[in-house]
Amino acid sequence: MSGSEFGVSVEDRYFEDYVPSDIFEYGEIPVTEAEIIEFARRFDPQYIHVDLERAIQGPFGGLIASGWHTAAMMMRLIVDNFLPRSASLGSPGIDELRWLRPVRPGDVLSIRLSILEATRSRSKPDRGVVRTLCEALNQDRAVVMSLKAMNIIACRSAP
Amino acid sequence: MSGSEFGVSVEDRYFEDYVPSDIFEYGEIPVTEAEIIEFARRFDPQYIHVDLERAIQGPFGGLIASGWHTAAMMMRLIVDNFLPRSASLGSPGIDELRWLRPVRPGDVLSIRLSILEATRSRSKPDRGVVRTLCEALNQDRAVVMSLKAMNIIACRSAP
Repeated sequence: MSGSEFGVSVEDRYFEDYVPSDIFEYGEIPVTEAEIIEFARRFDPQYIHVDLERAIQGPFGGLIASGWHTAAMMMRLIVDNFLPRSASLGSPGIDELRWLRPVRPGDVLSIRLSILEATRSRSKPDRGVVRTLCEALNQDRAVVMSLKAMNIIACRSAP
Repeated sequence: MSGSEFGVSVEDRYFEDYVPSDIFEYGEIPVTEAEIIEFARRFDPQYIHVDLERAIQGPFGGLIASGWHTAAMMMRLIVDNFLPRSASLGSPGIDELRWLRPVRPGDVLSIRLSILEATRSRSKPDRGVVRTLCEALNQDRAVVMSLKAMNIIACRSAP
């Protein structure tokens, strides 16, 4: 893993620990055909995600993961490694989610998180909003998905 | 169900069938505690999604669904009812995803899809991009999540 390191574990992490321009990398998550099909049968049963033979004839030339599955796999790495265990107060949303390249069975994903902004709330000064560029990369270091996340995080100490 | 109706089934639906200002509603999806916990254990194991006793003390006063779970449930309704079965060519991404209200066990979700734009591609005139405001509503008709989706859809006939 390259890039920055947090000085504190997820258990003791607060708003003050999120510093703009810090970059973190986490992974890896192997992507299997069985998991692609299982997720998509439940939530996104388009043939490109669940029907191998038809997917080969389709626009991606084979089975690919649902974009929502890729997002969910990224989220697991974010929760395990990046967000504070107690001080996370939820997310108002995300912006500019882009599915840039197909994710295929056998791919191995990692994520790169670049902190863009950390702004303490004026109305509720016990917390702040952290904006993070979240990118999922495959084993060739190509970005397969990117999004900008907002997270509300409690502060360690008063302003 | 209120709003517009497609003249053709998902099997025979093409770019030309997506008309700006048409509005569709689909549902319902009951949300269970077991499914909230199951999804979150795998993809988003924050205590507000997986640990009932601790979640009661947390910022939402109880267990809530992972935002990615809500998105995945919405996607299932979109695939089953809205996107063309064959003419869908994938999505470059989404914009302005907002988690506006918590989704709790016992909620029943439906979706409202408002077509914003349908633009035939200049470079590849056999397809177009459809932009849709996708909203998830709970049983009180309150919007719990919204996003703007882009979908690439094949045209039925040449321009």
